[in-house]
Amino acid sequence: MTLFDSTELIDEEVENVTAELLALDPDGSRMARVFRGTFDQLYDGQRTGRYKIEQLFKTEKTHFGTLVEINLQRELKFKDGDILDFKIAGNEVDCKYSHTGAWMLPMESFDEIVLVTQADDHRSTWSAGVVRVAEQNRRTSVNRDKKTGLNALGRSRIRWVHKNAKMPPNTLLQLAPQVVDRIMSGRTGQARLNELFRSAKDKRIPRNVIATVAQQNDFMKRVRDNGGSRGALRSEGILILGGDYRIQRDLAVALGSEAPDPGELVSFEVVPADPGLGVEIDGNWWRHSKPGERATVPAPTLPRSRAKP
Amino acid sequence: MTLFDSTELIDEEVENVTAELLALDPDGSRMARVFRGTFDQLYDGQRTGRYKIEQLFKTEKTHFGTLVEINLQRELKFKDGDILDFKIAGNEVDCKYSHTGAWMLPMESFDEIVLVTQADDHRSTWSAGVVRVAEQNRRTSVNRDKKTGLNALGRSRIRWVHKNAKMPPNTLLQLAPQVVDRIMSGRTGQARLNELFRSAKDKRIPRNVIATVAQQNDFMKRVRDNGGSRGALRSEGILILGGDYRIQRDLAVALGSEAPDPGELVSFEVVPADPGLGVEIDGNWWRHSKPGERATVPAPTLPRSRAKP
Repeated sequence: MTLFDSTELIDEEVENVTAELLALDPDGSRMARVFRGTFDQLYDGQRTGRYKIEQLFKTEKTHFGTLVEINLQRELKFKDGDILDFKIAGNEVDCKYSHTGAWMLPMESFDEIVLVTQADDHRSTWSAGVVRVAEQNRRTSVNRDKKTGLNALGRSRIRWVHKNAKMPPNTLLQLAPQVVDRIMSGRTGQARLNELFRSAKDKRIPRNVIATVAQQNDFMKRVRDNGGSRGALRSEGILILGGDYRIQRDLAVALGSEAPDPGELVSFEVVPADPGLGVEIDGNWWRHSKPGERATVPAPTLPRSRAKP
Repeated sequence: MTLFDSTELIDEEVENVTAELLALDPDGSRMARVFRGTFDQLYDGQRTGRYKIEQLFKTEKTHFGTLVEINLQRELKFKDGDILDFKIAGNEVDCKYSHTGAWMLPMESFDEIVLVTQADDHRSTWSAGVVRVAEQNRRTSVNRDKKTGLNALGRSRIRWVHKNAKMPPNTLLQLAPQVVDRIMSGRTGQARLNELFRSAKDKRIPRNVIATVAQQNDFMKRVRDNGGSRGALRSEGILILGGDYRIQRDLAVALGSEAPDPGELVSFEVVPADPGLGVEIDGNWWRHSKPGERATVPAPTLPRSRAKP
């Protein structure tokens, strides 16, 4: 018996499935969209204002993994498996999701290949990997439903397609609960949104968070200059920049805030700066306010910001 | 041992759950919306053009019942159960769905109350009932997953909340497959929609079917007078009536076609009628064409039809 046996360490079918998944989604953006989308689909924030797992109904919590499976197959167009969920690179593959990485493996998956997936909405990360539920990779104990888990060797043998990859953030989970309560206690969607932009400065705020806080149709209108948060918060020195415009995104970077991606917004306070220091907007110079510093004059009007948030 | 033992036949907890469900949805319109919505959610017709179970991915087919459970709890706001899915009228209730009425009952549900549900997209019907998985109501055999089904006595004891109730139709399933193929083979959304209105005469066509056939955003624009099917098919004598307008709905009834509900459309051919026979529209008299009869003049312009389809 040798300590390193290469035939045991390389499982060609697992390698092929992993390679195929990487080819389908080289930068992970498609799977990131699936995980972000599954959280948002279950929260159903625009209708319900919910933004965390704990607020879901029991049936919704129970079946998070089910929706991940459906949404992964929809996005990546996996062929149906004959026995297991999918057929990938010609191999039967079962799909498993766990918030904690404690995948429950049913007997049907024994000795087969599984796509194990995991996501963390607090850290805005997700992982997807491929492993064979070989005898040496799984625990010997089974629970009442005849399911078991990977053992330490099995976990170490997961071929990660993407590990702790990023997905768009759930901004509300990055704020203290009492801050979220304050935001959500506003009587109107507009009042709640204004408080969001005041309270979540220098953070990427995706459209879906806007929908959850506004809880109305046409929620992006509530961000606009004209009758929305951008106009309402100007007098407080708050600038709201949108990632849909390159010029606004560049401005956020130049002023030292977070850069909003397309579909995202970022808000922060600006104050007048000495000429040559900071950034020139419409003939005047501005810089990001310092911690504790309060705005003294209204924030500038943005180039093209009137057109669309 | 008596043949009829009334204490055995009346299960007060089952009665209470049934009564509560009826109180929550007296006419069944809320549950009808859930079943219709679950089919449509899985077909995802606007993006995919799919309109029947057979076209779904394996994961989607497998988890139809899961989505019914989630959507019923969302719509009717059932409290979470401590052990089973829901708590209704103070009782633990497990929710089961089966396309065929062959509900699989796991051991956790033994001796407990289950809400059994079923829907048929071809017949546009659904049912929901309440029964206790008592020993005498269930089969003695169990499958590998330790699940069993109701026996004949159990099925007879289901207290139906609504049985074979109606839901909005899936018009595409009411057409011959070759007709649907012809409709769906159109190169543009507009061409496909025109063929739908030509081929599915005197049938209720819900918005969602329009979305599935058009496969585009703003699909209702493709129905309009101005640049949509209504204008395009006028020269063929085809009238398209919308259930969102009382006047159009009444016109459909007066002309002897199906009556569209709100959110639905109905198309059919009209021909000129002798004054006093048929229906007067804008100064002229019209009647529904007879089988085999062809339109000879363009269909009339509808009152208010320009405003909105």
